[in-house]
Amino acid sequence: MTEQLTAERILDTAEDVLRRYGPAKATVVDVARALGVSHGSVYRHFGTKAALREAVAERWLRRTSVPMAAVADDPALPAPERLRHWIRTLNATKRHYATQDPELQRTFRELISTTTGVVAAHEAELAGQLGRIVAAGVAAGDLAAADPAATGRAVFQATARFHHPAHAADWTSPANDTDLDAVVDLLLAGLSPR
Amino acid sequence: MTEQLTAERILDTAEDVLRRYGPAKATVVDVARALGVSHGSVYRHFGTKAALREAVAERWLRRTSVPMAAVADDPALPAPERLRHWIRTLNATKRHYATQDPELQRTFRELISTTTGVVAAHEAELAGQLGRIVAAGVAAGDLAAADPAATGRAVFQATARFHHPAHAADWTSPANDTDLDAVVDLLLAGLSPR
Repeated sequence: MTEQLTAERILDTAEDVLRRYGPAKATVVDVARALGVSHGSVYRHFGTKAALREAVAERWLRRTSVPMAAVADDPALPAPERLRHWIRTLNATKRHYATQDPELQRTFRELISTTTGVVAAHEAELAGQLGRIVAAGVAAGDLAAADPAATGRAVFQATARFHHPAHAADWTSPANDTDLDAVVDLLLAGLSPR
Repeated sequence: MTEQLTAERILDTAEDVLRRYGPAKATVVDVARALGVSHGSVYRHFGTKAALREAVAERWLRRTSVPMAAVADDPALPAPERLRHWIRTLNATKRHYATQDPELQRTFRELISTTTGVVAAHEAELAGQLGRIVAAGVAAGDLAAADPAATGRAVFQATARFHHPAHAADWTSPANDTDLDAVVDLLLAGLSPR
């Protein structure tokens, strides 16, 4: 009996095919062949090649954003410490991906550069998580911010150096942790209630 | 009578040759040919191809850092306004280069990626300028910082989104100016004396 062709199985295989052939060359036919099905079967799940690529990119980015949401919403840490822990965790997660498998990382960066809407949604999700930490801090009187969502966005942008993949080469520098803490110190000083 | 072969003339020509052939293909022989001199004459000024490339990269980066130093050291603006003006000016300068002549920009980014020491020195120079603004603010009682140089470095990193060329695509977004001001507001709040 054949294994059922689920969206998840297609995405697993598409990820593998993208990795082997590179985003520039991989086709839906390659994915179908690797699954032993017709390309029509793949198109029944993902209507276009672009839709399949976007779904692969989204799933890849969710591997970061889902665990980060757990950090953002964990009430165990007061908001200032939680904000620092969130940024350190995101930096460490991205460094892990960048150093553990640089080739896969390059493949996904190339793929992601063609799916700008997916990236924008991912960045908005992460900035929103920071906004929730800021809101929790305001509610508890630990942080001051007139508009926690806007502040979350500002904190996300002010820490781009520690999570945007263009800066990956700096994450293995011996100064990385000191630099990250210096930026977070400055941001928390700006958010501390007067 | 032949025009004298100065380092400046060699750099002008090298910049032009790099632009025409691209950093991967341009050679010292190409530069010498364009100048109508022997490659030995070029080597008398720049001992190696790497030294010539570094000198071109340095001169290119000084076109940004020299005018930025004038902004950093201009006592007309109080330090908090000067810091904001410095970051806005750097963002506008970089956007100008990135949009006015994207091909030249790509050439220089490619060149610069091979001269990491030159880039590190340039970034240290710019962070140092921010450190001087912070020090001026501390001296005037407008800003608070225990270590102005370290704070300058933190402010430089916290604003990477607005000056690191990897983020150039965001500088023409309608949200760029609001985003920049939101980050600067947060940093200045962190630097304001209590």
